Amino acid sequence: METKSILIDNVTILGGEIKKGSVIVENDKIVEITEKSGSHSADEVIKGEKKVLMPGLVNTHTHLSMTLMRGLANDLPLDTWLNDHIWPVEAELNREDCYAGALLACIEMIKSGTTTFNDMYFFMDDVAKAVDKSGLRGMLSYGMIDFGDEEKRKAEFKETMRIIEKCHDTADGRIKVVFGPHAPHTCSTELLKEVRERASKLGLKIHIHVNETEFEADQVKESYGVRSFEYLDEIGFLADDVIAAHAVWLSDKEIKIIKENNVKLSHNPTSNMKLASGVSPVSKLIGTGVNVSLGTDGAASNNNLDLFEEMKLVALLQKVHTGDSTVLPAEKVFNMATIDAAAALGLENEIGSIEVGKKADLVLVDMKTPSLTPFRHPVSHVVYAANGGDVDTVICNGEILMRNKVLEVLDETEVVRLAENAVE
Amino acid sequence: METKSILIDNVTILGGEIKKGSVIVENDKIVEITEKSGSHSADEVIKGEKKVLMPGLVNTHTHLSMTLMRGLANDLPLDTWLNDHIWPVEAELNREDCYAGALLACIEMIKSGTTTFNDMYFFMDDVAKAVDKSGLRGMLSYGMIDFGDEEKRKAEFKETMRIIEKCHDTADGRIKVVFGPHAPHTCSTELLKEVRERASKLGLKIHIHVNETEFEADQVKESYGVRSFEYLDEIGFLADDVIAAHAVWLSDKEIKIIKENNVKLSHNPTSNMKLASGVSPVSKLIGTGVNVSLGTDGAASNNNLDLFEEMKLVALLQKVHTGDSTVLPAEKVFNMATIDAAAALGLENEIGSIEVGKKADLVLVDMKTPSLTPFRHPVSHVVYAANGGDVDTVICNGEILMRNKVLEVLDETEVVRLAENAVE
Repeated sequence: METKSILIDNVTILGGEIKKGSVIVENDKIVEITEKSGSHSADEVIKGEKKVLMPGLVNTHTHLSMTLMRGLANDLPLDTWLNDHIWPVEAELNREDCYAGALLACIEMIKSGTTTFNDMYFFMDDVAKAVDKSGLRGMLSYGMIDFGDEEKRKAEFKETMRIIEKCHDTADGRIKVVFGPHAPHTCSTELLKEVRERASKLGLKIHIHVNETEFEADQVKESYGVRSFEYLDEIGFLADDVIAAHAVWLSDKEIKIIKENNVKLSHNPTSNMKLASGVSPVSKLIGTGVNVSLGTDGAASNNNLDLFEEMKLVALLQKVHTGDSTVLPAEKVFNMATIDAAAALGLENEIGSIEVGKKADLVLVDMKTPSLTPFRHPVSHVVYAANGGDVDTVICNGEILMRNKVLEVLDETEVVRLAENAVE
Repeated sequence: METKSILIDNVTILGGEIKKGSVIVENDKIVEITEKSGSHSADEVIKGEKKVLMPGLVNTHTHLSMTLMRGLANDLPLDTWLNDHIWPVEAELNREDCYAGALLACIEMIKSGTTTFNDMYFFMDDVAKAVDKSGLRGMLSYGMIDFGDEEKRKAEFKETMRIIEKCHDTADGRIKVVFGPHAPHTCSTELLKEVRERASKLGLKIHIHVNETEFEADQVKESYGVRSFEYLDEIGFLADDVIAAHAVWLSDKEIKIIKENNVKLSHNPTSNMKLASGVSPVSKLIGTGVNVSLGTDGAASNNNLDLFEEMKLVALLQKVHTGDSTVLPAEKVFNMATIDAAAALGLENEIGSIEVGKKADLVLVDMKTPSLTPFRHPVSHVVYAANGGDVDTVICNGEILMRNKVLEVLDETEVVRLAENAVE
């Protein structure tokens, strides 16, 4: 294979020590970081003056195809929203719809600087097709629900194993498949135990929702006599390969269990606020040493996939909730969306920071714009002042996916048309 | 004067009944709204297909020149932030700095769809110069503080009257000057009483901070034996021309006083969260019939001037704070940032909605972008999915300030340079 090289010249580098320098990419990897400017030739040269270079953002909980349901229903009680709006539409979704919705989500993520995500939904081989085309990196899981029905359980495992066999470790390794048991209140103990067994055997991660709402937490308590994480611990489900989304309602005992088992949490501030689910004790969790990263959830409850918004919001929400403006400083928040998220997905040796030997998943943000002037404290600007629209250039796995705000993959007009048709 | 006309053709019109139609502007005013497309000739034709046309957003509390302090200090306790970072820098600001900061703020506001704002700061004649150049509409106030010092009080009134005489009702009526007593804990009773007297006599509004933090509310209680709005009511300060910013800490009695006096409140969710000031009881206030609009506060505590973020955040914060996902629906939030805000500034007959006879303060948002696809429920998209970067074209007082994301006023590169120099 011929070597392809990119030089990002004379740029302010975040994600690690902040420094001015140049980054050289060969094929899919970062091969050199130097303080010199202009000393390398490369196939592609990107000028970094007045830009920051940061690791691609990592979204640890989302449902890509739900972009189709963006704006479908808002400002409703959670049960009305789900029962009367979201679930009836989901029951009608076919694989072409999910493909179109996933393509739309991929474009949205590229444009707002996300290069890796952790997705759970249906028709995941079609989602994989979209992700492959987009050039992004994703962990995909088929959402399994059995409500105690054995036939349903068998069917769910059949579909999961089909997706694993068909899609795991495809697209030059950009696509991984993981197990996606939906939640402890929608999955039987049998299902969860079998997931644990198979995941350990195959060395694949587990992606699950836990305690998003007080109602769900109470349901588990009612069914099993103990709180959700106690129950999951008792049945041997928990380990350091579990990524639990939401985790809003937690007792101190549950926090201890999460920490002891090194379970990874994906916090979704926008969704939790919009659905009035509650406020996850994020600063307490982080103080305890728990790995907490950020997710957008699906677009139906957000209503976009912009991780810049989640970064700002987790800081704002924890500050006002604890009454302490010093909690969740910008630098920590930035790590939550990059290196901590990479670690949650077990990819900390590959992505999440800008280091020689790591994959070239890189985002350039233009700092010359009025809303990011004056150019000081770049991490603060990224967290508090910028939004996804400030992203200028995106590289994933060494491929340039967007350059100067223009996509180099996928046809934006065509994808928008596909998505609008799917909605009709 | 020759008539200048603009036709915005075949567009989805928000701010009132949602409808598809065309809007005709002559000079500074909207002269016709028709369901027909292409039936008019005009000097300028803007195609509205797949765009929404909304009233320019109205920011009811900000400090423009603080854009220079964006990112200066974050994640600190409020007193450290103010005493060690903001105030020392403010003490050094000269009129050229304030001018540069205001120009930068004007560009930021235009680019994110704000056409009217309510500002309080220093060197307000220089701020007025920037606003005049920018084409925006603004209410300006010199921030008065006397801490009980009679000499200081005289000087503050002298400066206020100078600004009123020099700047009020200038720039084709786009600039108004109002009184800006800083807050009840920084201004003497004498100052506040004199402001009331002069404001009533001159028919000018009053812009003040009240109860931003619990500490400030307690200070007033300690000084006067009653809570801030009780005190302000007792001294005869309150009336329907008062715009009180923040109003985070409120007793039920204070809410009643606010309602009875028809005081207008400017809620600043980002700033209140970032500084951990607290959560204003906005949905309760609105339920009581109080006019609550939105402000960004200064960029130092936000860290941008994007009212789209405030719209999303007020809804999210009230939902999670009350535990009720139905409060502050998108339509109400949209009104808070448009017609309710116009009414707070006494401009409801001139701006805040799209109606024949009103000023042409108009914003076009492009809905063809992936993050706003599918194109349904436009008010929901504006509040929950869009950000300031989605604004495409901005008209204020019948002048096109930005077209297809390119400014037609001010020199962006030059203003960024001016601001960077001021910071140095």
